[in-house]
Amino acid sequence: MTPGELPPTIAWAGDRIRLIDQRRLPDELVVVEVTTVAALCECIRSLAVRGAPALGAAGAMGVALASVRGASLTEAAEALIGTRPTAVNLAAGVRRALAAADPVAEAVGLAEEDLAVNRSIGHHGVTVVGHGARVLTHCNAGALACVGYGTALGVVRAAHDAGRSPFVWVDETRPVLQGSRLTAWELDRAGIPFRVIVDGAAGALMAAGEVDLVLVGADRVTRSGDVVNKVGTYGLAVLARHHGIPFHVAVPFSTIDPSTGTGADVPIEERDEAEVLAWAGRRVAPAGARARNPAFDVTPAELVTSYLTDRGILEPGSLRLAVDDPVRGGS
Amino acid sequence: MTPGELPPTIAWAGDRIRLIDQRRLPDELVVVEVTTVAALCECIRSLAVRGAPALGAAGAMGVALASVRGASLTEAAEALIGTRPTAVNLAAGVRRALAAADPVAEAVGLAEEDLAVNRSIGHHGVTVVGHGARVLTHCNAGALACVGYGTALGVVRAAHDAGRSPFVWVDETRPVLQGSRLTAWELDRAGIPFRVIVDGAAGALMAAGEVDLVLVGADRVTRSGDVVNKVGTYGLAVLARHHGIPFHVAVPFSTIDPSTGTGADVPIEERDEAEVLAWAGRRVAPAGARARNPAFDVTPAELVTSYLTDRGILEPGSLRLAVDDPVRGGS
Repeated sequence: MTPGELPPTIAWAGDRIRLIDQRRLPDELVVVEVTTVAALCECIRSLAVRGAPALGAAGAMGVALASVRGASLTEAAEALIGTRPTAVNLAAGVRRALAAADPVAEAVGLAEEDLAVNRSIGHHGVTVVGHGARVLTHCNAGALACVGYGTALGVVRAAHDAGRSPFVWVDETRPVLQGSRLTAWELDRAGIPFRVIVDGAAGALMAAGEVDLVLVGADRVTRSGDVVNKVGTYGLAVLARHHGIPFHVAVPFSTIDPSTGTGADVPIEERDEAEVLAWAGRRVAPAGARARNPAFDVTPAELVTSYLTDRGILEPGSLRLAVDDPVRGGS
Repeated sequence: MTPGELPPTIAWAGDRIRLIDQRRLPDELVVVEVTTVAALCECIRSLAVRGAPALGAAGAMGVALASVRGASLTEAAEALIGTRPTAVNLAAGVRRALAAADPVAEAVGLAEEDLAVNRSIGHHGVTVVGHGARVLTHCNAGALACVGYGTALGVVRAAHDAGRSPFVWVDETRPVLQGSRLTAWELDRAGIPFRVIVDGAAGALMAAGEVDLVLVGADRVTRSGDVVNKVGTYGLAVLARHHGIPFHVAVPFSTIDPSTGTGADVPIEERDEAEVLAWAGRRVAPAGARARNPAFDVTPAELVTSYLTDRGILEPGSLRLAVDDPVRGGS
């Protein structure tokens, strides 16, 4: 690694998985070894590894792990898929390794593809980032959400490398703070200028003319083009429309799920109330308080300016055509 | 006090001020005694006492404190006003005590008025809360933001007391968490059902049809009806409009500042970046990270359904008339 470069978010290491423990960022960069499916499931549930593309690799590598351990592949698949119901890539990665003659080779291939796909998203997507553009992003759609490079942040990286001098407003992204903990950490290492804001400050910055575009990733895009992503994304899309600011979604084409009709068909994971009510083990709300903690929300296709994919830039109108006929799709 | 009842948020006690130290909520209810203007300024800056109406009382009592200590009233006034530039009530309270023959009597009178004003806001405002209404609120516009009772939460209290069984979605309100720390605590003590949510979840709940109205307070309302309130309020107003949900602002009539034309004329306080980047002394963003931390945002009058005031319910169109001719204003 050169300075600032990251180890892979998740990688196959002979007979085990190595992954960056994202729970410990930004305090320390720790790579842990995972040798059982149960341990991997716990890593996924606790968000040690997260992000749609990274979960795809994790799913495939989980099946690979079961195969080298001589464990039941179908039991492993079921356990892995059950950990996070919303991300489509996790289940797709599991099924792909399950259907392969050699799950290990398939998992390794999927991880290699992911990197290439992300670089391709950056290559196509860079055109939406003007010189000196002030990009607002939510959650972490960076290298840490993928095997490497990133989707939304991959586009920012590509713009940075092309000398376009992008600046990033980083939504801290409560409750788990993937923005301030992970996105800020990635941008800092990459030398891309940024400022962290609380999620509620996005509207004020847009009204003040300080945001040129919104750029997010997605956990799933439906056949209709609805975008399922970290809770808070929908509010940004409504605000962007209100201010006439472009709202772009950077995703691997594989995140578009032709088997899901619209956002209403997607199960939204409700996570532990403690993520909202406590902080590093310390309660911030009174003892009697309860919370609602939906992890995702749905942004309807009509609020999306474009989808930045590895097959080119799609608009909501061209998305369905591309999904129905992937060879012709894209631009 | 009966069980669940609160001591006054701020009160005059012979020759000193007693106030609830809101930095220590919800962990413990501590009333501190303040005997110098410098100590009061520090309480205001650090948000031990906050909320537009409570700051009005604090401003007047600060001048009273200077007068009983034989200190310079004008120096005290200047120091107090300088602590928080956005709230109009703070400066108004200071000036009122400064102009009075007896600053102590004036401050005590202002605090008594505040309670009466809030009960009147509740009396008028209760009509916008239907039976079983699900109210979404932001920050803390409760008893803790006033001498007692509350503005937005005062309306909820009035609805609760009238048997309308309101339910409250409590935005946690980053960065200082006045929602999860203070509003949740107040509602819990009052026996009013609620759930805390992260600020980014409001849009998803509105889209799911789970919000009937938005009800917030304000730090200042301009002559044009623009609402300056805790950062994040503007985003809620845009979302409410997008979903056809009423957006009400509960304020003492005195929070409407005829000398401020529009929101563009209001200085927006930028607070310490550490409020965003650290938590209870522990950094949550990488060491190199910077933040932007505007404490307030501006909601244009056209997004406001109505202003719930102690002089009745005003709509944006009738607000200016009421400000120009307070006798005729209101409904």
